[in-house]
Amino acid sequence: GARALAAPLHPADIADLFELIPATYRQPLAEALGDTLDADVIAEMNDWVREALLDVLSASQVADVVSELDTDDAVSIVEELDPDEQREVLRALDPDDRAAIEEALSYPEESAGRLMQRELVAVPEHWSIGQVIDFLGLAPDLASDFWEIFVVDPGHKPIGTMRLSWVLTTPRSIAVADVMQREQSLIPVDLDQEEVAFRFQKYALISAAVVDPVGRLVGVITVDDIVHIIQDEASQDVLRLAGAGDGDINEPLRKTIPVRMWWLLINLGTAILASSVVAAFESTIAKLVTLAVLMPIVAGMGGNAATQTMTVTVRALATNQLTSSNSLRMIGRELAIACANGLGFGILMGIACQLVYHDTGLSLVLFAAMAINSLVAGLSGVIVPLVLERFEIDPAVTSTVFVTTMTDVMGFFSFLGLAALFGLTSTPG
Amino acid sequence: GARALAAPLHPADIADLFELIPATYRQPLAEALGDTLDADVIAEMNDWVREALLDVLSASQVADVVSELDTDDAVSIVEELDPDEQREVLRALDPDDRAAIEEALSYPEESAGRLMQRELVAVPEHWSIGQVIDFLGLAPDLASDFWEIFVVDPGHKPIGTMRLSWVLTTPRSIAVADVMQREQSLIPVDLDQEEVAFRFQKYALISAAVVDPVGRLVGVITVDDIVHIIQDEASQDVLRLAGAGDGDINEPLRKTIPVRMWWLLINLGTAILASSVVAAFESTIAKLVTLAVLMPIVAGMGGNAATQTMTVTVRALATNQLTSSNSLRMIGRELAIACANGLGFGILMGIACQLVYHDTGLSLVLFAAMAINSLVAGLSGVIVPLVLERFEIDPAVTSTVFVTTMTDVMGFFSFLGLAALFGLTSTPG
Ligand SMILES: [Mg+2]
Ligand SMILES: [Mg+2]
Ligand SMILES: [Mg+2]
Ligand SMILES: [Mg+2]
Ligand SMILES: [Mg+2]
Ligand SMILES: [Mg+2]
Ligand SMILES: [Mg+2]
Ligand SMILES: [Mg+2]
Ligand SMILES: [Mg+2]
Ligand SMILES: [Mg+2]
Ligand SMILES: [Mg+2]
Ligand SMILES: [Mg+2]
Ligand SMILES: [Mg+2]
Repeated sequence: GARALAAPLHPADIADLFELIPATYRQPLAEALGDTLDADVIAEMNDWVREALLDVLSASQVADVVSELDTDDAVSIVEELDPDEQREVLRALDPDDRAAIEEALSYPEESAGRLMQRELVAVPEHWSIGQVIDFLGLAPDLASDFWEIFVVDPGHKPIGTMRLSWVLTTPRSIAVADVMQREQSLIPVDLDQEEVAFRFQKYALISAAVVDPVGRLVGVITVDDIVHIIQDEASQDVLRLAGAGDGDINEPLRKTIPVRMWWLLINLGTAILASSVVAAFESTIAKLVTLAVLMPIVAGMGGNAATQTMTVTVRALATNQLTSSNSLRMIGRELAIACANGLGFGILMGIACQLVYHDTGLSLVLFAAMAINSLVAGLSGVIVPLVLERFEIDPAVTSTVFVTTMTDVMGFFSFLGLAALFGLTSTPG
Repeated sequence: GARALAAPLHPADIADLFELIPATYRQPLAEALGDTLDADVIAEMNDWVREALLDVLSASQVADVVSELDTDDAVSIVEELDPDEQREVLRALDPDDRAAIEEALSYPEESAGRLMQRELVAVPEHWSIGQVIDFLGLAPDLASDFWEIFVVDPGHKPIGTMRLSWVLTTPRSIAVADVMQREQSLIPVDLDQEEVAFRFQKYALISAAVVDPVGRLVGVITVDDIVHIIQDEASQDVLRLAGAGDGDINEPLRKTIPVRMWWLLINLGTAILASSVVAAFESTIAKLVTLAVLMPIVAGMGGNAATQTMTVTVRALATNQLTSSNSLRMIGRELAIACANGLGFGILMGIACQLVYHDTGLSLVLFAAMAINSLVAGLSGVIVPLVLERFEIDPAVTSTVFVTTMTDVMGFFSFLGLAALFGLTSTPG
């Protein structure tokens, strides 16, 4: 049956299968799979799908799953449990596993301490390569997969690292001290996962040593867990810019709807603010209804230009390409683009307006408003994220609201305000 | 001087330094660094920064840089050169390097063939682990870093793989055939890099064998090159949704401005389309100018709700979480959210409108228009990307234009159309 069909599949494929089928089929599939649904499959699952499956298991069954995994995968399951489930599962674990997981949970969420596994290979500096090879051949209970051997001093502080390929291609008689690379990226145990991922990416790391505040080697982070973080952090930015929360399609609707609505409510506030600007010019519009036809163009073009600039700025900040040393240059760059846009589209629409409405005043006002709003868009698109980042507020979460408020309000205000100033009416002079 | 300061830095840090300083300082810095500016630093640089530096070098100098790198890094430099520069550099390379790079260039851009390095370790199945270890110890000119040893048949077709940690922890007498893992992800040489990255992520790969159309092992892709692709592909989606091109802050303005303007021009077309809907109802607005005040709220709320749905859909498609097997479920999910939004915000704004304007007709029309546009937003936000993906058009590039056109046009049309239908005027009944 299902068991025979699933047996040759990779755990990640079985996990995907659970995610793709409707929620009501998941429990029956789990029962049909029996042992094929092992700890590795559960570790690969989407949080929400896993939560639903674990809900029907007893604390000791969950503890069995958890104890089969490396610390990093075990923690990623335990950290998602409700507080009292978590307590029960921890109680059901054997003391070693329990201590390891409790220690990991003591580090901040999304920090290196949660990502690291404690299973690693460390050797002293005075060994030869031959001793390392013999040690590895004899040790029965090593970490199953490792990519790098850490060299530690007697106080268990990392002093060097050797890739396994170096160990294998070096004669047995050579000393570890002569092979190891002394410079390495040591990851502080409380470093945010985004910064951890950034270092892996920049220095092309496969694994990296994690050290506690006094510099002792406490764990290792491997790149296979980092690829998910790179993916998640980049996805997070696009989802946050759009106010879409986690954007997890397996999240229950009762969680998704409030997140989406909350964002829309904030945006409703800014829309009302923009519309109050229009309301202030009701009499101006009454004199020339064409203003109501053209005003969405001014606001909309500003919004689109601002979104371009804001998105580039947010991504450049997130990937550390934009720092305080080049932010002035970035502002200058976006200002130049905004001038090009403002003049280009201002002149284009000014001419188009003149051809359609034969109203020079209106055409000039449209040109001026588009040029002004283009500058507002370019400047707010780059400055708002920079300022938010400076105040350590995630620019991806908050930029959109500020920036689109600016372009909507200033778009309506500059266009309708100039129209009022020049006394435009529906009988062109 | 600069050389002594830069010597202890990682090549990636020196490359970053070049990116962070203004363009005019880069050439002098390159001269000051001399030999410290080696091939590894150049390989790490942003495309545009590198191009400017390579422009002043002769073809044989560029060839020297290229010949120091692994094939994958060499190709990433050569593929960016102008066609005649490329020809000259290839001519200046020694025949082996030249053949390797020309072969890589024969594969499609952004395919596995461009990403792979040809430097790899392959052994026959009949060897023992001891033979493998001795072979590695003796071979002087192996790939400098490798993480996995491929097992091949006499026709050089991969039949298994061994992680180095398995080799090191297995007794010498055991046969390779008993240690190797027979199932492995074989990457076809013309597979798109996005799909390659997806497999690395899903199966937690550190390296993977690349095979030609007849199944022979031709290269290996390592995860350190994949992390950049994961980052780039995810960034690409957010930048494309915003119409920001590559979003590369080092790109020359003469390249950036046309890309940004082209997007804004398309959006201007959709803004004009939406404004023509407003124009069709000029007489309706003339009778009740308040319609001009409220209409941006209807269109704007629809646009924001659509952006949420569209972003979630585009990311779910890009990460293969959304496939044809669950797209109906996804549409149902977004429809439910759209109903909640439409009713919630429709009722909220209907009541607010009644309190401010004491005009029951206007309040009912606003409620209805917001509810309708919320459905339009939710449905177009999910269906447009799904349809584009089905027709193999990148949903990130084209969704925004279609979706915001829908919400703007339908927002104005439903609100002003209903107002016209019910004959709303500024003297409330
Ligand atoms: Mg999965
Ligand atoms: Mg255990
Ligand atoms: Mg984060
Ligand atoms: Mg792990
Ligand atoms: Mg894992
Ligand atoms: Mg972030
Ligand atoms: Mg860099
Ligand atoms: Mg070479
Ligand atoms: Mg692609
Ligand atoms: Mg490489
Ligand atoms: Mg590289
Ligand atoms: Mg893509
Ligand atoms: Mg808008």
